[in-house]
Amino acid sequence: MSSHIGTKLHMSVFGESHGEGVGVILDGFPAGFAVDWDKLLAFQDRRRPGKNLTSTQRQEPDQPVILGGITDGVTNGAPIAMRIKNQDTRSKDYAEMLTAARPGHADYTGHIRYEGANDPRGGGHFSGRLTAPLVFAGGLCKQFLEARDIYVGAHLASVKDIWDQPYDPVDLTQEQLLLPGTREFPVLDQEKGKLMWDAIDHARLYQDSVGGVVEAAAIGLPAGIGNPMFDGIENRMAAVLFGIPGVKGLEFGAGFAASAMLGSNNNDEFYMKDGQVKTRTNHHGGILGGITSSMPLVLRAALKPTSSIAMEQNTVDYKNLVDTKLSVRGRHDPCIAVRAVPVVEAMVAFVLTDFLLDGKR
Amino acid sequence: MSSHIGTKLHMSVFGESHGEGVGVILDGFPAGFAVDWDKLLAFQDRRRPGKNLTSTQRQEPDQPVILGGITDGVTNGAPIAMRIKNQDTRSKDYAEMLTAARPGHADYTGHIRYEGANDPRGGGHFSGRLTAPLVFAGGLCKQFLEARDIYVGAHLASVKDIWDQPYDPVDLTQEQLLLPGTREFPVLDQEKGKLMWDAIDHARLYQDSVGGVVEAAAIGLPAGIGNPMFDGIENRMAAVLFGIPGVKGLEFGAGFAASAMLGSNNNDEFYMKDGQVKTRTNHHGGILGGITSSMPLVLRAALKPTSSIAMEQNTVDYKNLVDTKLSVRGRHDPCIAVRAVPVVEAMVAFVLTDFLLDGKR
Amino acid sequence: MSSHIGTKLHMSVFGESHGEGVGVILDGFPAGFAVDWDKLLAFQDRRRPGKNLTSTQRQEPDQPVILGGITDGVTNGAPIAMRIKNQDTRSKDYAEMLTAARPGHADYTGHIRYEGANDPRGGGHFSGRLTAPLVFAGGLCKQFLEARDIYVGAHLASVKDIWDQPYDPVDLTQEQLLLPGTREFPVLDQEKGKLMWDAIDHARLYQDSVGGVVEAAAIGLPAGIGNPMFDGIENRMAAVLFGIPGVKGLEFGAGFAASAMLGSNNNDEFYMKDGQVKTRTNHHGGILGGITSSMPLVLRAALKPTSSIAMEQNTVDYKNLVDTKLSVRGRHDPCIAVRAVPVVEAMVAFVLTDFLLDGKR
Amino acid sequence: MSSHIGTKLHMSVFGESHGEGVGVILDGFPAGFAVDWDKLLAFQDRRRPGKNLTSTQRQEPDQPVILGGITDGVTNGAPIAMRIKNQDTRSKDYAEMLTAARPGHADYTGHIRYEGANDPRGGGHFSGRLTAPLVFAGGLCKQFLEARDIYVGAHLASVKDIWDQPYDPVDLTQEQLLLPGTREFPVLDQEKGKLMWDAIDHARLYQDSVGGVVEAAAIGLPAGIGNPMFDGIENRMAAVLFGIPGVKGLEFGAGFAASAMLGSNNNDEFYMKDGQVKTRTNHHGGILGGITSSMPLVLRAALKPTSSIAMEQNTVDYKNLVDTKLSVRGRHDPCIAVRAVPVVEAMVAFVLTDFLLDGKR
Repeated sequence: MSSHIGTKLHMSVFGESHGEGVGVILDGFPAGFAVDWDKLLAFQDRRRPGKNLTSTQRQEPDQPVILGGITDGVTNGAPIAMRIKNQDTRSKDYAEMLTAARPGHADYTGHIRYEGANDPRGGGHFSGRLTAPLVFAGGLCKQFLEARDIYVGAHLASVKDIWDQPYDPVDLTQEQLLLPGTREFPVLDQEKGKLMWDAIDHARLYQDSVGGVVEAAAIGLPAGIGNPMFDGIENRMAAVLFGIPGVKGLEFGAGFAASAMLGSNNNDEFYMKDGQVKTRTNHHGGILGGITSSMPLVLRAALKPTSSIAMEQNTVDYKNLVDTKLSVRGRHDPCIAVRAVPVVEAMVAFVLTDFLLDGKR
Repeated sequence: MSSHIGTKLHMSVFGESHGEGVGVILDGFPAGFAVDWDKLLAFQDRRRPGKNLTSTQRQEPDQPVILGGITDGVTNGAPIAMRIKNQDTRSKDYAEMLTAARPGHADYTGHIRYEGANDPRGGGHFSGRLTAPLVFAGGLCKQFLEARDIYVGAHLASVKDIWDQPYDPVDLTQEQLLLPGTREFPVLDQEKGKLMWDAIDHARLYQDSVGGVVEAAAIGLPAGIGNPMFDGIENRMAAVLFGIPGVKGLEFGAGFAASAMLGSNNNDEFYMKDGQVKTRTNHHGGILGGITSSMPLVLRAALKPTSSIAMEQNTVDYKNLVDTKLSVRGRHDPCIAVRAVPVVEAMVAFVLTDFLLDGKR
Repeated sequence: MSSHIGTKLHMSVFGESHGEGVGVILDGFPAGFAVDWDKLLAFQDRRRPGKNLTSTQRQEPDQPVILGGITDGVTNGAPIAMRIKNQDTRSKDYAEMLTAARPGHADYTGHIRYEGANDPRGGGHFSGRLTAPLVFAGGLCKQFLEARDIYVGAHLASVKDIWDQPYDPVDLTQEQLLLPGTREFPVLDQEKGKLMWDAIDHARLYQDSVGGVVEAAAIGLPAGIGNPMFDGIENRMAAVLFGIPGVKGLEFGAGFAASAMLGSNNNDEFYMKDGQVKTRTNHHGGILGGITSSMPLVLRAALKPTSSIAMEQNTVDYKNLVDTKLSVRGRHDPCIAVRAVPVVEAMVAFVLTDFLLDGKR
Repeated sequence: MSSHIGTKLHMSVFGESHGEGVGVILDGFPAGFAVDWDKLLAFQDRRRPGKNLTSTQRQEPDQPVILGGITDGVTNGAPIAMRIKNQDTRSKDYAEMLTAARPGHADYTGHIRYEGANDPRGGGHFSGRLTAPLVFAGGLCKQFLEARDIYVGAHLASVKDIWDQPYDPVDLTQEQLLLPGTREFPVLDQEKGKLMWDAIDHARLYQDSVGGVVEAAAIGLPAGIGNPMFDGIENRMAAVLFGIPGVKGLEFGAGFAASAMLGSNNNDEFYMKDGQVKTRTNHHGGILGGITSSMPLVLRAALKPTSSIAMEQNTVDYKNLVDTKLSVRGRHDPCIAVRAVPVVEAMVAFVLTDFLLDGKR
């Protein structure tokens, strides 16, 4: 396992879906920071399951408990340690799966990797439940960034083939950036949101699931943050974002679309605006050579459809090495992309905070 | 700068486009490995510029010179150090650019990051020339992998909107995998290759450039390599691949396409084949939960169009902070994706070697 | 803060002396390992305070609670997370100290480092209480090593100028190695132990404290573990051992004494013994060029006297920047070296486990 | 191998004693720094062999050649790469040793670690020759520190049982700190230096060698640099200093002597001096809780006697696994501690620069 990451700000995640609970240690967060606890819980609440039918019906209060690093609501410099207890775990739902590999899941690969000793219940340490501590960590980072007038937001850019209006990559306002986070269904265009919802509900009714794309952005970043080659914004962002269960693709700025463009179209013309160097378009997504340009940082993460589906699937019994069939019980989101929105947002905030603490400027 | 990366196998890259040369240290490569030097040079030759009109006309022998770690053709356990001298640098081509930010380049962001002290000639340390040592390092890793019956290959999957035939993600043979690397233009379908070539030549004639996608794959990997969360195959692969200049997107398996699929379609059904657990489809790209499944590893990297184009562009003088115009002289590939093929291949081999040396199995 | 360390096995420590508790995450420990819980608690008990007058009278059961990574007594591959609740904290003892820098403590340096926001009660995160999770982590590692016939032990080599009999560096038996750990006062020569005890008690009566040296050793290590230069046994051992509060010196084998020797005396003659390469003496402490030689690994850590003493001392009020006086209340070990014995033993076991998991051989 | 280290400033060392040469990459050094080349060469010259009979008679100009990162004498932000060519290597001196393990050397352990493939000539990558690039790297760091009024110096504190006057740990002046570095024999008390010299010369005449201690110090460091637990000044200093061949012990401040003291003696009383918090004594060596106190940083490294001695020694043939005899030919310093003085100084400067670049204050 390597459930830890970070350069100046180091995050170490623990827990299993059906064990005692989940949690995180955040080492390197600055001392003397007054945490807005209500804001933190409100952000945590954005990934909470059981809010409506687009997500798992597992009911958990997800109440984070501080184990260290915060005294009287203020960070004291010591590692910030937090845990969330598991409460509503129905391990019997997973009994059947103990020897049948759920397609799309890490049951089989985890079994080989850990030589049969990993906890497969609910995905164990591979579970989406591990994103709860990520959101906690990212929520703290969002507060750190906001104190420096840097804002991070995200929205559900697509479900299946239905696309929300994209963030404006050039003139992205704080209002547009944060609007989806205030909504029960995190989109900009609520008409499109309704269509997405229908697609998710349709999949659910057919015991199926759907994928989606999350777009995240950050504004207020000064130019000059980052590094070339292997330590740039994209590199460290990618190393973290591919840690979110279900992420199979990632692009910055125009991303894959840039590969179909001419240089004369893709190149973002520089110009002076109010004494500042800006670009007229933003296909570079705010990053050139791994370093911020002061234009909005824009990225998109592709989430595969939820692997756990109720309809019967062919698979193998990975212990007995025979073909078998499986219907995944348990309660699962029909579209993990919805609840991935605050998770992506959290991890973008984590990486940016890590860069800012690096003290390069 | 952080021009170094790796867990068990550590790579540290140095040099500038118009300085003394470029090079790499590879620390952690096993001792006692007999290097096939001809094979290494042949691989190195695949990214060499000046071969035809799709690439820069800069002529460089790119002859690697060993500075340490190899005695009589065999690795001795010490760090492998290599340098390539720069020979054909025409710095005067860059005189004009010294104060004009080339759109799409890191001139401006590097200027801010290094407070005016970075070497902008030819992109300095940000230059695509730095990929020569990457190919050297990856060439060694390819030999290491081949000794374990693991093969890595790559092809030019697209240029602009013209797509090559994809690798067969399920039954990928060694022959198909390595075929593009034997061709002057690295594609599977040579008819499509001709169309791509025309698109590149067309862009060149119009003093423009085009983007493309590189698809890479690996076969022969056993199941169980990798880790969950932040240390999986995708994470470490991404952290390295986004270090290749021009990469703006990355996806594994079905990638972004998975986000538009239903779970019942995207899930890869497990079945027993000759006593082995396999999947009938391979949307997961050979990775589940960050860990290999023994199916072919498949990924695609999106390369933006070459930023350096000869046509006149509007930009700013980043020192004097005024608007200006610029025609980028110097010799540049009209499509960096072509020469990025062996670079992506090399870096995939580097990451896989790093994982295998990690000794988890 | 950087309260985490490790290469293949990663340890992340959290908590404060007078906060909610202390704990640790151990990421990378092998899956499928059946933990001997009684043995673990017995080891944990060796550093427990309040056992006798040589240590602080603070009474704490120090009962570790597993938060993740262990299912039904067996490691499951996920990070092992553990916490110990603080129970017997008397913060009011520390009221006076809140503005007076305790000589020898990190109150002042921590205040500057964390800009006044660190928790000074009982040393906060700098407290010796943080060694409880270290002992837990090391206790697991000791079990891992013992399953491979590798044993780690430690004893109190000196208190003040009274020296215990040293470990036999050449023919160290498992019996001698582990004997001190079975005793209430961890020495080999119990006559010397009695003198040490008297010295500690004498210091305590005079409201003073004394220093000491801990000697640790490991047997059963095969030759060839480690690396040259910056990643050798000494380097990684030192990076961890200097993390134990109060350690101000560290030496391997003959250590400082070697600096006063002739080469002809210090060089350990190799010879063949039962088909194995061994040395007749062991001034190299089992490590040559950062790599194990298969001779016993021997090291010594110097612990300064407990900084907290009851007698009145001159100091400064670091907030008001004036001279002041201070008598440190609270309950403190008059000789931290005694309870440091299992801590050093634990950390030696941690580093060796980390190396063995590195899979080099 | 892991011949690289560093947090913000990363150093990667390469080369072998009898290969092409040795060198280093320094990644993370600030851009825009004008290197004083003469000063750098003068410092490099302090470890140069062949200066007098206390060191090896191997004559090498040790001229460093820049491969990248410096343009027109000014750092450009790219990794600084340097190599020194080997010129005067007499590999035939080592012919006999190819199968006989030199006592005190890593021939045997390296043979096991690298399965017979390492280059044993002159110690290969384990050679003291690898300290030449360390001195280069540290020389740059010394210039960086001096530009911030931080000075690092070192002297030969002892040879055998002859001790130089120690640095004044409380009122250490820049003059005293740097004086030994200006002398051919790097001591404070030249009378003692003469006795040391005689001891070395005596050992040489008897085909033997002697050990010694190097004391290093730094002044001008502000309070608050460093971290608790595993990332403190001592930890990172130790991880680097144990990378210098021959170092077997390390202590900070009073170090091992502190273990024999009473707390009331060892505790350094704080007091206000000219509005600054200072201590009246400095047993803590300028570090409390891993963090600088603004008092002089003082440490001592114990160097074992040179392992290569000309007198005949018993040993084993590690390939044929039989007992044999060996007289080490080649040219060797009779006391490596002498030339280790600038190496220790260099590495202390490297670690301090790494901490300062960490940007915590």
